[in-house]
Amino acid sequence: MRRQVNLRVEEMPRRWYNILPDLPEPLPPPRDPEEGESRLAALPEMLLAECLKQDSSTQNWIDIPDGLGELYAQAGRPRPLFRALNLEKRLDTPARLYYKAEFYSPTGSHKVNTAVAQCYYARQEGYERVTTETGAGQWGTALAYAASLVGLKCTVYWVRAVYDWKHDRRNFMHLLGAEVNASPSPKTDFGRSLYEKDPNHPGSLGIAISEGLEDARRDPKAVYCLGSVLNHVLIHQTIIGLEARKQFEMFDDYPDVMISCLGGGSNFGGFVLPFVRDVLKEGKKIRFIAAQSEVAPNLQAEYRYNFADHAEITPLLKMYTLGHKAEMKPIRADGLRYHGCAPILSLLRHLGYIETVAYPADERYVFERARTFIQAEGYLPAPESAYSIACAIDEALKCREAGESKTIAFNISGHGFMDMQGYREVLGLP
Amino acid sequence: MRRQVNLRVEEMPRRWYNILPDLPEPLPPPRDPEEGESRLAALPEMLLAECLKQDSSTQNWIDIPDGLGELYAQAGRPRPLFRALNLEKRLDTPARLYYKAEFYSPTGSHKVNTAVAQCYYARQEGYERVTTETGAGQWGTALAYAASLVGLKCTVYWVRAVYDWKHDRRNFMHLLGAEVNASPSPKTDFGRSLYEKDPNHPGSLGIAISEGLEDARRDPKAVYCLGSVLNHVLIHQTIIGLEARKQFEMFDDYPDVMISCLGGGSNFGGFVLPFVRDVLKEGKKIRFIAAQSEVAPNLQAEYRYNFADHAEITPLLKMYTLGHKAEMKPIRADGLRYHGCAPILSLLRHLGYIETVAYPADERYVFERARTFIQAEGYLPAPESAYSIACAIDEALKCREAGESKTIAFNISGHGFMDMQGYREVLGLP
Repeated sequence: MRRQVNLRVEEMPRRWYNILPDLPEPLPPPRDPEEGESRLAALPEMLLAECLKQDSSTQNWIDIPDGLGELYAQAGRPRPLFRALNLEKRLDTPARLYYKAEFYSPTGSHKVNTAVAQCYYARQEGYERVTTETGAGQWGTALAYAASLVGLKCTVYWVRAVYDWKHDRRNFMHLLGAEVNASPSPKTDFGRSLYEKDPNHPGSLGIAISEGLEDARRDPKAVYCLGSVLNHVLIHQTIIGLEARKQFEMFDDYPDVMISCLGGGSNFGGFVLPFVRDVLKEGKKIRFIAAQSEVAPNLQAEYRYNFADHAEITPLLKMYTLGHKAEMKPIRADGLRYHGCAPILSLLRHLGYIETVAYPADERYVFERARTFIQAEGYLPAPESAYSIACAIDEALKCREAGESKTIAFNISGHGFMDMQGYREVLGLP
Repeated sequence: MRRQVNLRVEEMPRRWYNILPDLPEPLPPPRDPEEGESRLAALPEMLLAECLKQDSSTQNWIDIPDGLGELYAQAGRPRPLFRALNLEKRLDTPARLYYKAEFYSPTGSHKVNTAVAQCYYARQEGYERVTTETGAGQWGTALAYAASLVGLKCTVYWVRAVYDWKHDRRNFMHLLGAEVNASPSPKTDFGRSLYEKDPNHPGSLGIAISEGLEDARRDPKAVYCLGSVLNHVLIHQTIIGLEARKQFEMFDDYPDVMISCLGGGSNFGGFVLPFVRDVLKEGKKIRFIAAQSEVAPNLQAEYRYNFADHAEITPLLKMYTLGHKAEMKPIRADGLRYHGCAPILSLLRHLGYIETVAYPADERYVFERARTFIQAEGYLPAPESAYSIACAIDEALKCREAGESKTIAFNISGHGFMDMQGYREVLGLP
């Protein structure tokens, strides 16, 4: 039986998919708060011109420049789609399970897909340095990687609560030549205001975003890069779903259910949006399920305009949000701790296209599901990806009870080689 | 410019290459020591019947069973061959550099290639458990992985000096369901004899082999698996070189120089042997260079009959050896610390087909070369693989001096995500 399908480098998609013109309702645009300076007016000095253009593009398909396609190939794309035959057998389910292998990544996650795009454009637009925030560390590593490949400097602001224990990932960023700061840091005005009150302030993604933005705004040769939430990030990530769609054809199958974990929405969006197109334009029927944590179940919160960052530097975005100052308890799947969901996915949720499930803050349930997957399929998922797996296994077991042979596809956004401490602590390994 | 070439799953080689019948001289067979019990007579109860058969096979090509081909696909094979365009540019060399991506592996190294083969045969031959030794930990993880996939139990004896600090890899083996013992352990007679004298005995690969062998010999449902040195291991690993040969055709290029690190010889042999065939049978000219450490430069030692293990349980093998009781200083590239080189490669070395270079025990030179590679190509190599890289860069720089545009191919046998402590300590990262 076929367990894997891959594509030749020449078969890699040459265009990303932009769902904006296909949405059933227009996407509510970003807007300014009623008081204070205009954030919208400041956007062009915050973001890459090409990315800003993509954010509101009415083109359905956006060309991947040849030089950028080379960088995708350099990063090892296309990545395989696996049939989880062993897992099906262990679960004794009639469902057919498939997983997309974003864990086969140079830095460990799907974040590379937009990092190389943004660094490619940054280089083209004449910048010499990129700045960013990172939570779990996956995005910071990906940007450090991409910057190094194209010859840019890179400054990372990393949520201190995570920075403090992820030594290996921090050192990897250093090896890649990046400057890495624990956030809040004394390097920016905003960071300093918090740092001086409490040098051990644990930080948050919102705070780190504010620092990355401030740093780039002060240096005309630097530009800020965001790893999630915004439309252009989701566009770049559609390479995942576009590959998967070709690979499902090769398997002669098609998903009934698609699952991935969701923090800000970049891997979820990248994986499902090309299939959402099939639902919207071609009448296909697919259930899309976002796997979240109870500590940040943003898709179960309010759908309203809210800031994307803690310091209110960004415009307001219409999204499902817990509020931009929400406190979220630390979990091992740090990448899922974000207060809001990408506007495109929020609208789709609002319109009833996306379901969600939130797993307990005590992560034993999720990590035990990951262990089942590891012993069946042999791949070590990142803690965030363990949520995809937990949800896929739950759905497969429902199929067993109902005697339904559905096709369930899930994305494994990253590997867990640098997250073993999380496994050790949650599962009590020796 | 093309930076990567991969193969479809359907294009994966379906046969391994066995160089035995093509060697210019017959391979000196294993033999018994002049005193004591016959080790040769005990071999059938030590090794898998199929592997023992392959060890002296006169067939040039050995079929990969379909079920095993599936396991290769499950592990993500085929793996890409990369052109190192960025590295060439940074080195300003006219040489063309290519690297094979064995680091894209579920457990982190090429060891998976023979682990799945051995577990596949073990299952077929009715065993319920596999035992083994491990040094760097890559082989132990690979066997734990393969055993878990096919539903066997796995017991690992791990050199204590490494076991003590590689927590993450140890936990990964546990997650895969393996039993892991620091060696020398109190679990075997031989281990106990050393353990009781010194419970902190640092151990060695030779000692751990002895324990794995003893454990399996006492349990009729268990079989011992070896991850290097023996002919069948090299046969299984030729999947690396066979894929690379097809991929070089797709690049329309062919290597002048082939490089890999060498401890016992499994990744080196797997990478080069299909090309050695071209040299022996088709008159091609290739320089083969083994990158070693000064702490274990076995290819610069004596060519003679010697035991493969410390406790003298194995037959004598004709090989380049430092002596089976040689003391070797700990280095980060633990996988290169073995006293002898695989008999097939030893004979080729003896006949002048293989060159060797040994890098200083102070590993800063090698790790700095790895850093150059990481910043250019973005992949994090295992410490062992850093030796391949160091040697490839040295050769590329010679090409620059000589103005020669040679084609240099090197194998990156594993990734370093679980070896960051080594990088941190050797390079003094913060």
